[in-house]
Amino acid sequence: MMLPQGYRFAAAYAGIRKVVRDDVALLVSDRPAATAAVFTRNLVKAAPLVLSARHLVRSKGWSRAIVVNAGNANCATADGPQVAARTARAVAAALGVREREVGVSSTGVIGVSLPVETLVAVIPGLVAALAAENFDAAARAMMTTDTVPKTAVAEVNCQGGTVRVAGMCKGSGMIHPGMATMLAYVFTDAKLGPPEVRALLRGAVEESFGRISVDGDMSTNDTVYLMANGASGITEKQKVAAAVREVMIDLARAIARDGEGARKLITIDVAGAASDRAATQMARAIANSPLCKTAIAGSDPNWGRILCAAGYSGAVFDPARVDIDLNGFAVCRRGRAAEFSEEEVKQSLDAPDVSIRVSIRGKGRGKARFWTCDLTEGYIRINASYRT
Amino acid sequence: MMLPQGYRFAAAYAGIRKVVRDDVALLVSDRPAATAAVFTRNLVKAAPLVLSARHLVRSKGWSRAIVVNAGNANCATADGPQVAARTARAVAAALGVREREVGVSSTGVIGVSLPVETLVAVIPGLVAALAAENFDAAARAMMTTDTVPKTAVAEVNCQGGTVRVAGMCKGSGMIHPGMATMLAYVFTDAKLGPPEVRALLRGAVEESFGRISVDGDMSTNDTVYLMANGASGITEKQKVAAAVREVMIDLARAIARDGEGARKLITIDVAGAASDRAATQMARAIANSPLCKTAIAGSDPNWGRILCAAGYSGAVFDPARVDIDLNGFAVCRRGRAAEFSEEEVKQSLDAPDVSIRVSIRGKGRGKARFWTCDLTEGYIRINASYRT
Repeated sequence: MMLPQGYRFAAAYAGIRKVVRDDVALLVSDRPAATAAVFTRNLVKAAPLVLSARHLVRSKGWSRAIVVNAGNANCATADGPQVAARTARAVAAALGVREREVGVSSTGVIGVSLPVETLVAVIPGLVAALAAENFDAAARAMMTTDTVPKTAVAEVNCQGGTVRVAGMCKGSGMIHPGMATMLAYVFTDAKLGPPEVRALLRGAVEESFGRISVDGDMSTNDTVYLMANGASGITEKQKVAAAVREVMIDLARAIARDGEGARKLITIDVAGAASDRAATQMARAIANSPLCKTAIAGSDPNWGRILCAAGYSGAVFDPARVDIDLNGFAVCRRGRAAEFSEEEVKQSLDAPDVSIRVSIRGKGRGKARFWTCDLTEGYIRINASYRT
Repeated sequence: MMLPQGYRFAAAYAGIRKVVRDDVALLVSDRPAATAAVFTRNLVKAAPLVLSARHLVRSKGWSRAIVVNAGNANCATADGPQVAARTARAVAAALGVREREVGVSSTGVIGVSLPVETLVAVIPGLVAALAAENFDAAARAMMTTDTVPKTAVAEVNCQGGTVRVAGMCKGSGMIHPGMATMLAYVFTDAKLGPPEVRALLRGAVEESFGRISVDGDMSTNDTVYLMANGASGITEKQKVAAAVREVMIDLARAIARDGEGARKLITIDVAGAASDRAATQMARAIANSPLCKTAIAGSDPNWGRILCAAGYSGAVFDPARVDIDLNGFAVCRRGRAAEFSEEEVKQSLDAPDVSIRVSIRGKGRGKARFWTCDLTEGYIRINASYRT
C-alpha cells in the first residue's frame, strides 16, 4: 500500500539520547493541512504541548509540520517554553512556513533541560533529507522503550480516486495505569476542513487509543495528531473516517502489544452489559488489573480475578449471570467455574494473542472492546532502572 | 504488652491449603462482644461475607466468635452459601453459642468449592485448644502470600484500670490496584455498645486500611472486624478510639510493607493541597502508580514520575508550586529539579523505609498520608504463578 500523497519525512540523530540512534523526526505536509490534535489531560503539561495547542488555535487548524524528539520530555524545567518555541522557529525558518504551522512533540525523561542547540543544529539537514521514503525512519526515531517501530496504513477507493491514510506512533510503558508517553501522528490526503478533522480525530481516538486505557492516566506529553492535506482532492467523509479509525486501532493495538515487557496482546470484549458505558467500565477494570495481567503472563486461566475486577469496576451487574471465555474456552458460566481442561486452556494462553470475553446473560445490549498486554517481570526491569 | 482480657484463639491445619501449615483460625470472646465489621464494596461478594453481615444484623451487633480459613475464598461457587452456613453452625454448636453470634471469613482461590467437611472436622479440636497464648498462631493461620504474620497491640491507662487492644491481619497482594484479600480482626476489652463500635471502626478504617489504597478496588473477601467485649469494665471512648486507630494503622503499615514482592515501605505525605480530599487524591495516585513504585524499587529519585502522578490524580494545583522531598532530600522545588546529589539520594532510597513528601507552596491546608510498597519483579513472579 502506498502512503498518502504530499507528505515527506526525515529522521536524524541529534545526541539527545545517549545511544546513537535517530532521536529527532520531522513530519511535513507539502501543502497546508487541516490539523487537529488531542493532548494529555494531565494537569502537568509539557511545554511543547502548550505551544502546539496555541499554534493550532492561532493557525485556525492549519499546519505544515511536526517535529518530534525522543530522549527528553522537555517537561518541568525552567526553560521548557523557550526550548519548544526555539525549536518551532527553527523548523519554520528552514521550511519557509509560519511558526504557528509547526507542532512540537517531545518524549523522554522529565525534569532535565532539553539541549536545544543540538536539536536545532540538525534541522537544516532534516529539511534537506525530507522524502516519503523516510516514513519508517521517522517512526523509528520517536521510539523510546518501544521494541518495534509502529506504523499502519489504509486506503479507500472512492469515486474520483483513492484516499490514503498512514500513521506512526510510539507507545510502550504499561500504558494505563502507568504514564509512559504515547505519541501518534496520522496523515491523510483526503480533503477535509479543520472542523471535520477535529470531529474525526475525537471519535477515532475514543475507539482506539482511548481503549488501551491510556486516557484518564495520561502522561505529561501524550499527543495524537491528525493531518488532512487534501492532496487527493477527495472528500468522502464516511469512508475516510473508517480508514482513519482503522489506522488508529492498528496503532493502538501495536502499542498494547509492545507494552513494556509484554509478551501478549490481550483483547477484552464485554457484551450484555446494561449500557456501553457499563461495559467500558468493566473492560477497563479488567484491562488495568495487575492481577489479571499477571495471570495471563503466567498462562493461568484464573477467571476469578477477571470476575473480581469486573466486580469492582463500578458497573452494576448480576455476578450470577456472567459467562467468561478465554481464547474461546468456556471457563466460567453463570458466575461459577465451567468444566474445562486446565491443561488445554493453559496451553492456548501461551499464544501471543489472548482473548478475554465477558458476557452477561439477559437483555443488556452494552458492549465494549479494550486492548491491553500481560504484565511480566520485564516491565519491572525496564522501569526500575529506566534512567540508569 | 498484654492482650485484652476475655479473648481466646486457636489454629489448626484442616487440609484446605496444599502445604501443611495451619489454615483455620478460631477467634473467640468469652462473653458477648459488641461487634462491627466493614466488608468489601466489590459487587462480587464471597458467601462468608454475605452470611456474616446478615448475622451481625440479626444479632444486633453482638457476637462471640469468628472462624477464618485460608487457601480457599469460598467465592463464585454453587455451594458457597451452604458451606459458610455449615461452618458457622458447626462453630456455634461446638462453642454453645448462637449461629448469628459467629462470623465467617475465607481467603484464597476463587471459584473452587471449599471442602467444608475437612473444615468442620477440625472445629471441635479448635474449641478444645482455645487459649490467649494462641494469638500469634491464629495470625499465622490466615497468612496466604504474606511472608510474616501481622499483629499489633496497644494499651491505654484509664481511671479504673487499663484498656487493651490487639489486632491481627493478613494482607499481601500489591493491595490496590490489585485485589489480594485483606482480613483484619481487632479486639478490645473496652466496654462499648454496638453503635459506638460501628462508629469507631468506620473512622479508624478510613485512617488506616483506607490509606493503603485498598478501598475502591477491594477483593471479593475483604473484611475488617472490631470486637469490644467489655471485660475491662472501662468506657473511655476517646482513649479507646486512639488505641484502636493506632493498632489499625500499625496493621495497615504492616500490610503495605509486606506487599507481594515488596522490599520497601513507602510513606507518602501530601501537604498544602486545596483540601484534605485533594491531598488524598494526590497521595493515592502516587501510591498506586506502578511507575513511581518501580522507581522506588530501583532507588531511582525520579521525581518527575511523582509530579506526573499527582498531575493526573484529578486534584487541581499549580505544578509550579510543588516541592518534592525523598527521604528528606529536596529533589524538586517549584516544579523543577532541585540541586541534589543523585548518588546520595539513590543510596538513601536503598533503605527499607522510604518517605515521599509533596508540598504545595501557598495557603492550602489540605494534607493526607498514605502507605504503599515498591513494585518489584517478585510481585510478578508471585502472581503469574499463584495457582501452580
